[in-house]
Amino acid sequence: MALQGGGAKEPETHSNRCVRLCNPNIATMKEDILYHLSLSTSSHDLPAMFGDVKFVCVGGSPSRMSAFAKYVASELGLGQSGEDHPNICTGTDRFVMFKVGPVLSVSHGMGVPSMAIMLHEVLKLLYHARCSGVTAIRLGTSGGIGLEPGSVVITRQAVDACFKPEFEQLVLGKRVVRGTDLDAGLAQELLQCSADLGEFPTVMGNTMCTLDFYEGQGRLDGALCSYTEQDKQEYLRAAHAAGVRNIEMESSVLAAMCSACGLPAAVVCVTLLDRLRGDQVSSPHDLLAKFEQRPQRLVVHFIKKRLAGA
Amino acid sequence: MALQGGGAKEPETHSNRCVRLCNPNIATMKEDILYHLSLSTSSHDLPAMFGDVKFVCVGGSPSRMSAFAKYVASELGLGQSGEDHPNICTGTDRFVMFKVGPVLSVSHGMGVPSMAIMLHEVLKLLYHARCSGVTAIRLGTSGGIGLEPGSVVITRQAVDACFKPEFEQLVLGKRVVRGTDLDAGLAQELLQCSADLGEFPTVMGNTMCTLDFYEGQGRLDGALCSYTEQDKQEYLRAAHAAGVRNIEMESSVLAAMCSACGLPAAVVCVTLLDRLRGDQVSSPHDLLAKFEQRPQRLVVHFIKKRLAGA
Repeated sequence: MALQGGGAKEPETHSNRCVRLCNPNIATMKEDILYHLSLSTSSHDLPAMFGDVKFVCVGGSPSRMSAFAKYVASELGLGQSGEDHPNICTGTDRFVMFKVGPVLSVSHGMGVPSMAIMLHEVLKLLYHARCSGVTAIRLGTSGGIGLEPGSVVITRQAVDACFKPEFEQLVLGKRVVRGTDLDAGLAQELLQCSADLGEFPTVMGNTMCTLDFYEGQGRLDGALCSYTEQDKQEYLRAAHAAGVRNIEMESSVLAAMCSACGLPAAVVCVTLLDRLRGDQVSSPHDLLAKFEQRPQRLVVHFIKKRLAGA
Repeated sequence: MALQGGGAKEPETHSNRCVRLCNPNIATMKEDILYHLSLSTSSHDLPAMFGDVKFVCVGGSPSRMSAFAKYVASELGLGQSGEDHPNICTGTDRFVMFKVGPVLSVSHGMGVPSMAIMLHEVLKLLYHARCSGVTAIRLGTSGGIGLEPGSVVITRQAVDACFKPEFEQLVLGKRVVRGTDLDAGLAQELLQCSADLGEFPTVMGNTMCTLDFYEGQGRLDGALCSYTEQDKQEYLRAAHAAGVRNIEMESSVLAAMCSACGLPAAVVCVTLLDRLRGDQVSSPHDLLAKFEQRPQRLVVHFIKKRLAGA
């Protein structure tokens, strides 16, 4: 593990902790092409572009992350229009990225592999840019278990489909299991922010991260389904008993990779439906749009509080 | 398994075979919301919109699938401009979809989970639209093993990171393994199309489908890496010895799901680099763009040939 900034004499705290990579090869590369971001260490001055980043906010949908960047700009009083914060990754259509002061807003698509590609490249970007004191937060949508739709869940632990706090990966064909630790203090801080706002119900709970939206989450309405409503209910109730309050598709890899690279990370997802009551996302479009703004409200409040306290 | 069109008296052949789902629940649903496509059986007349679809062409990048739709339109003499074939999924930014005569061009994002979401919903769309004789083809990019960059690989078998022709999934927390059969006749037909064109090297070989682009494919340039160049070379050479000629991130779930639903499927990917010689995608942008057109050239030639023979 290559520890950046090893020459510092101050004791390491959150605010001066550099982003470190778990790969000694990167420091020796002449050029590093961040292919899926369409950025590179030779064509872009990454320290100048990104050196002051303190918050990396990520979410699945490109348009949602564009809206989030605009919302951050208006709340922080930075820039007057969307044009002040253009998409940085115009050379590709894989992801979008916006920078508003110390806040980076990046899309990650759907599922663990897509999130992992973005994270590998954004973590390298932060390393090349010599960023320190960076916090990572996913703002997402999810299916709830036993919660009123529109409730927000702050993740205590990201767990797999067997309710274990593990992220399993195949590396050179062999199974490697990593922990999915999230930052407990950060989760608590976010919960307090929701209490400050008092606008929507928010709970802390475990988040189940699956590789599939249909069969992988026990849905009865996919193109394939080989189990009954009763099997589904038993599975979801067992998940609930294990502390799971919502289900999504990216939290475990975010937790595993940020933890490995020394970034405190959190996951804040709104629930679009209660899976105990159904599988289809059938709420009207404008209600869903309102729900999707809740993690954004919460996280912007958190960022403003952090910046005011800094 | 619910077999559609069971009342037909003709013997079932490819051209009259209906898309069937492996889920008896769908036939009994009053409404089916295809959430990530922003389509539904009550708001859209799916048989009228999609009943004549015969070719479902999918690829990761939305702009590539938009370009493919325009190319198909010009080659089939259908429509004069891009405006004649607008994106059908305007209500969402998860996927794009274009229809040009019998050809559907759909993006699937990156990785198995994103592809699976799109496939569940597109397979249900084809079922609701009462489509028959449909062929599915992925047009993708990949890393090659021992091939000149720009070579095209037509997949014989989609294999996992242990080189087995299996797709493993967690369903209700239990491991389920499905086969990854692709249509051998279709692959042969596509290989013949490349020979007809004679424009670029094309081989048939196994395709390794991984859940990660960096560690999962033995790259040395991710944010995390815990093995050596030698470990990587040994792994890739073992893959080559097992018949693997390229690596990508979606083929196995396409093979497994299309096979389960009675759709002949194929995977046609261009290789952007030779992984035995490096990890970074460093070719100039215009050369990569030229490479990406090759699967499109091949598949359009195949579609024209099929339509001429029909």
